[in-house]
Amino acid sequence: MPRYRIDIEYDGTPYAGWQRQAGQPTVQEAIERAVLALSGEEITLKGAGRTDAGVHALHQVAHFDLLKNLPDRNMRDGLNAHLTLAQETVSILAAAQVDDTFDSRFSAKARHYLYRIGNRRTPFALDRERVWHVKKELDVEAMQAAADRLIGHHDFTTFRSAHCQSKSPLKTLDRLDVTRIGNEIEVRASARSFLHNQVRSLVGTLKKVGEGSWTPDDVQEVLAACDRTRCGPVAPAHGLYLIGVDY
Amino acid sequence: MPRYRIDIEYDGTPYAGWQRQAGQPTVQEAIERAVLALSGEEITLKGAGRTDAGVHALHQVAHFDLLKNLPDRNMRDGLNAHLTLAQETVSILAAAQVDDTFDSRFSAKARHYLYRIGNRRTPFALDRERVWHVKKELDVEAMQAAADRLIGHHDFTTFRSAHCQSKSPLKTLDRLDVTRIGNEIEVRASARSFLHNQVRSLVGTLKKVGEGSWTPDDVQEVLAACDRTRCGPVAPAHGLYLIGVDY
Repeated sequence: MPRYRIDIEYDGTPYAGWQRQAGQPTVQEAIERAVLALSGEEITLKGAGRTDAGVHALHQVAHFDLLKNLPDRNMRDGLNAHLTLAQETVSILAAAQVDDTFDSRFSAKARHYLYRIGNRRTPFALDRERVWHVKKELDVEAMQAAADRLIGHHDFTTFRSAHCQSKSPLKTLDRLDVTRIGNEIEVRASARSFLHNQVRSLVGTLKKVGEGSWTPDDVQEVLAACDRTRCGPVAPAHGLYLIGVDY
Repeated sequence: MPRYRIDIEYDGTPYAGWQRQAGQPTVQEAIERAVLALSGEEITLKGAGRTDAGVHALHQVAHFDLLKNLPDRNMRDGLNAHLTLAQETVSILAAAQVDDTFDSRFSAKARHYLYRIGNRRTPFALDRERVWHVKKELDVEAMQAAADRLIGHHDFTTFRSAHCQSKSPLKTLDRLDVTRIGNEIEVRASARSFLHNQVRSLVGTLKKVGEGSWTPDDVQEVLAACDRTRCGPVAPAHGLYLIGVDY
């Protein structure tokens, strides 16, 4: 029974997130339906990152098993044809048969996220569903100084959603870079895995530093507190992008 | 009676174009309504470029006269508040009182357009309303060679819509640059003014060269023919952006 890996881009705006939920449009279900339309087989798709409602992906990875043997190119183009027909905002970037030891979720060695803050006084007409609009000019150097305190192996309870299903709040954050490009601020985060809402919680906290409400020392303190109520506001979903998974 | 210049960004997707039309949503009318809501005055807004349905602007310029005297900052922020409230995809980047000799359309010395082609096999999930999706890999060097034949002072009848209201088909095209950035091709066009559909007609013709159907010599021939029926297909509106106006 061949196993397929697919690499996926999606606009998260119309979806209630990655994971299938009864009565709600999800990315997982959109792709499962496309596989059914193409092959006649009902499959269960497993993704590397279960992105929340409104979160985008420039590069998500998933896998599924199928009885049918389809050439990689036909799988990719066939799924895209059905996704386009169903007006889904999901694109299959690549499809490939892989060894059945490959697991998109458990074989992943690192996950990479990008968070986009649009930092100017006036609204973003074209990118309104693509960036978090923050009017006050943020101090990127202060944000990076605070980010440096968050990198490494920590108990990230402060930056974890109440709904998080992870067994442990201990994670190693390998990268947290803050860069200004014109009137946009990019935050790039990498780790083997993240807690639920961790990136958006980190970004909301960095924003408090950027606007001058908190210092990098305050951030170190809220991290050490291991107390969810000490976290900054959770940044909105529509600025977040899953941009890569390493195996 | 103070005259105001406003600089504008918009997502053209929901609009039937810039220019007011009975029963259709237009950018002009959206801003005129915002001015009315802010000031209580009915004005007529005049724009530098009358963009078509679906065409975007990163930087359009317009002007209007008002009895009321409002500080520039209050005008900008007030219009944005009303545009946001009305869920328009229009942002006022700047507002400033100007001398009443300033005319957004007739004082313009140059207009700059960007056309984005998304050039890869698979669909664009995030940029589906922002780029023209062309699957076949285009030869950018051949496109630039053809573009070089189009630069300069010519009779552009071949590249002019049947609805064009310009008195003369003679225009000077100052710049037509074709650049590849990853899987995107950017075409940048500058001129004092353009004929109706000229940029989209030029891009559709360059695409024929990029895919190998036409040579740069063919393009020179269709230009010289001064015959609308010889033009390549008109590129779709959603890849086109008005990006600047010089005064």
